[in-house]
Amino acid sequence: MRHCFGVDIGGTTVKIGFFAQDGTLIDKWEIKSRTENGGENILPDITKSLNDYLTEKNLDKKRMMGIGVGIPGPVNKQGIVQQTANLGWGYKNIKAEFEELSGMKVRVENDANVAALGEMWKGGGDGYGNLVLITLGTGVGGGILVGGEAVVGEHGGGGEIGHMQVNPYEKEVCGCGRRGCLEQYASATGIARLTRRRLEKDDSPSTLRGGEISAKTVFDAMKEGDVVATEVVEEFGSYLGKAIETIAVIIDPHIVVIGGGVSKAGEILLDYVKKNFRKEAFFANKELKFSLAKLGNDAGIYGAAKLFIN
Amino acid sequence: MRHCFGVDIGGTTVKIGFFAQDGTLIDKWEIKSRTENGGENILPDITKSLNDYLTEKNLDKKRMMGIGVGIPGPVNKQGIVQQTANLGWGYKNIKAEFEELSGMKVRVENDANVAALGEMWKGGGDGYGNLVLITLGTGVGGGILVGGEAVVGEHGGGGEIGHMQVNPYEKEVCGCGRRGCLEQYASATGIARLTRRRLEKDDSPSTLRGGEISAKTVFDAMKEGDVVATEVVEEFGSYLGKAIETIAVIIDPHIVVIGGGVSKAGEILLDYVKKNFRKEAFFANKELKFSLAKLGNDAGIYGAAKLFIN
Repeated sequence: MRHCFGVDIGGTTVKIGFFAQDGTLIDKWEIKSRTENGGENILPDITKSLNDYLTEKNLDKKRMMGIGVGIPGPVNKQGIVQQTANLGWGYKNIKAEFEELSGMKVRVENDANVAALGEMWKGGGDGYGNLVLITLGTGVGGGILVGGEAVVGEHGGGGEIGHMQVNPYEKEVCGCGRRGCLEQYASATGIARLTRRRLEKDDSPSTLRGGEISAKTVFDAMKEGDVVATEVVEEFGSYLGKAIETIAVIIDPHIVVIGGGVSKAGEILLDYVKKNFRKEAFFANKELKFSLAKLGNDAGIYGAAKLFIN
Repeated sequence: MRHCFGVDIGGTTVKIGFFAQDGTLIDKWEIKSRTENGGENILPDITKSLNDYLTEKNLDKKRMMGIGVGIPGPVNKQGIVQQTANLGWGYKNIKAEFEELSGMKVRVENDANVAALGEMWKGGGDGYGNLVLITLGTGVGGGILVGGEAVVGEHGGGGEIGHMQVNPYEKEVCGCGRRGCLEQYASATGIARLTRRRLEKDDSPSTLRGGEISAKTVFDAMKEGDVVATEVVEEFGSYLGKAIETIAVIIDPHIVVIGGGVSKAGEILLDYVKKNFRKEAFFANKELKFSLAKLGNDAGIYGAAKLFIN
C-alpha cells in the first residue's frame, strides 16, 4: 500500500491529511500558517511537519505518491500563482519550490476546486463528475468539475460564482467593486445585510429585532416561524436559485453541493434553494440534483489527496 | 496520409467534408436531409454518399480514420440521442447504427459543440482550448470548450446560453416558455423584436420606419448613423455583454467567438459587445478575448472531422 498527503493551505492554519492509496484518511493534523515576511515560512514549515511524520511512522519518502495541495487563490496548470494575498505570497512557483523542498511530487490547485474534488469523491457529491460546489461562508466561493476535472479557467478565475451579477438594481457595492453580486445576498454577511435591510423597511414584529443578526440567528428564527426571517430566507433562496439556474444552462451539471458555514442550517436551506431553482429552470436542467456538503473542513485535504489517487 | 469525414447533419441539408489527417479540407458537398418517416433515410443516404465518394476516388475504407458527426440536439457521450426533433428522430443509438451501416468508426457530438471545435481549430478561435462559441441566428446557440473538450453536460444541455435569463422584468414569453432569455434580445428575431418595441415607444425619426426590420437592416441603419438603430444595437450589446460577463465568472474562458447570421454585421458588432462586457467585468476576466467566427457554414464539418484528428 502506498500513501500520499493532502494539504489545504489557509490564511490561519494549514490542514494536513495522510491518506492510503485506497482513499482512507489515516491521520490528520494542523499547523499554523505563518504569513508574515511574504509567507516565506509556509512551505518550509509544512515540509518539516511532513518529514517529522514520516520519520515518526518510519515511512520511506520514496514510496510516497506525492503531496496534493490546495491554495486560497487562482493557480495555473503549472502550479504557479501570481499573488495569494491571504498567504502573503506574490509570484511563486509553488510546485517547483515545494518539490525541491520536500523531495516528493507535488500537484497544486485552487482550494475551492480541491474542495469540490473532495466532495465529489467522499462527500455530498456521490461520485458525480459534473459537479458544482457552492461554499456559503463569509463570502461565496465555488468549485466546478466537468468530467471529474476542475474548471480552472484561463486566468485561474473559473468558479468565481460569488461574483455572478444577480441583481442589476443593487445600490450597495460588493467587495469586488461591482454591484449586485451573488455574494451580497447568499453569504453569511449577505444574509445579515438582507435582514437588516428588511428590518429597517417597516415595523413588522420579529424576534430578530435588538438581537445579534447572523445567518445562524436568521435561519433559527425562520425555523421558529418568524415571518420576517422567513421572508429573508425566501429572498436568499431566490437569488441563489436563480444563480444556479444560470450555471445550469451553461454547463448542465449533475449535482450542486452546498457547503460553508451557512449550510449548517441544514436541509431546510436546500428546500428554499430547490424551490426557487425549479420555479423557472430550463427544461433540460429540471433533473439537477442538490446536496449538502458532508466533509466540512476536511473537504480540502480529501480533494488535495485526490490529485494523486485515481 | 490517412483521411476522415466530417458530417454536419442539419434539418434541411447534410454537409459533408473529406479531410486529410493534417486537417486539410480536400472536398465538400451537400445532400438533402430526408426527415420524413422518422428520418429513417438520413443515415443510409449519408452512407451511400460516402461510399460513392470512396469508390470514385478509389480509396480503401479500411484506411479511413472514421466519421465525425454533428447532430442538431443533445447527444450523450455514448452517441445516443433521446430525441432530435429537427431530424424526425426519437431514441437512436447513432454511433452504433452508423458504424454498422458504414463500416467505419463513428464519433457523434452536438452540432454547436462541433462548430466550437471547428472554430477553435481552424477559425476565429486561434487554437484556444478554453473557448465559447455564441451563434446568433434565428435563435441563440452556444458551444463551450474547456481544455479543448466540449462541455456536453449531464443531460446534453451544456452551452444552452440562449436560455440564460438576462432580464427578470421581461413580459413576453420565449420559445422555451420562460421569460427574459438572452435569445429574446440577441438573436436575429430578438433584434427585430427590440427594434419594433423601440419604434412603437415614441415618434423618433428612423429610416427603419415602414421598411423591412431585420438584424441586417438594423445594423445597416446603425452604420448610417440612425439614432434609433444605434439605441437598439446598444441594448443588444448590453444584454449580450452581460451574459458573457456571467459566463466568464463561471468558466473563465480565453476567447469568445461570435458567429451565426447576425455576426455578418462585422467588427462593429464586436465593439458594442466588448464595450458592454468590459464596463462591468470581474477583474479576473478583463483580458477575455473576442473574435468573429471565420468558418461560416463549414464550422460543423471542420469540428466533426476534428473528433478524429489530434
